[in-house]
Amino acid sequence: MQFVANINIMPIKEILDPQGKAVKLGLHNLGIDQVDDVRIGKHITIRLEAADAAEAESKVKTACEKLLANLIMEEFTYDIQPA
Amino acid sequence: MQFVANINIMPIKEILDPQGKAVKLGLHNLGIDQVDDVRIGKHITIRLEAADAAEAESKVKTACEKLLANLIMEEFTYDIQPA
Repeated sequence: MQFVANINIMPIKEILDPQGKAVKLGLHNLGIDQVDDVRIGKHITIRLEAADAAEAESKVKTACEKLLANLIMEEFTYDIQPA
Repeated sequence: MQFVANINIMPIKEILDPQGKAVKLGLHNLGIDQVDDVRIGKHITIRLEAADAAEAESKVKTACEKLLANLIMEEFTYDIQPA
C-alpha cells in the first residue's frame, strides 16, 4: 500500500527563531501589521510503500527522529494518509 | 480577534527538488526503503490580529504572494484558524 506522510518540523518554543523574526519585520515593511509571531520550519512530504498504516508510521517516526529533525532544537508532527 | 495561519510552501511539481533527493538517499542509507518520493518545503506559522476571518485570509494571502513564496518555483497552501 502506498502512503503519503506530511511532516512539519518546527523550532521548539524555547528557541529563538531569527528567520521568523526577519519575516515579521518584512511583513511590517509590506504594510501587514498586527502580526504577533512568526515561526518558520520545514514541511516534508514523503510518499512511501508499507504493508499497513502501522508500518508506515514506524518508518516515518524513525525518519523524523534519526534524520529529519534535530531533537535538541526542533520538534516534529506528522500525519499519514493512504495515497 | 487573533488567528493562527499554518502555511506550507512547496517547490512546484515541475521543479527538481535536490534537497528531497538527498533526504531520500539518506533514508535509504538509514535502512528505510520503499520511499518513492520526498519533497521539502517550508512550514510557516503566523499568529496575527484581524477584525474577522476574511481580513486574516487577505493578510495571509498577501504575505504568501509578496514575501513568503517565490511563485515561479513554489506554490503555497494555508489554513487559518481562530486562536
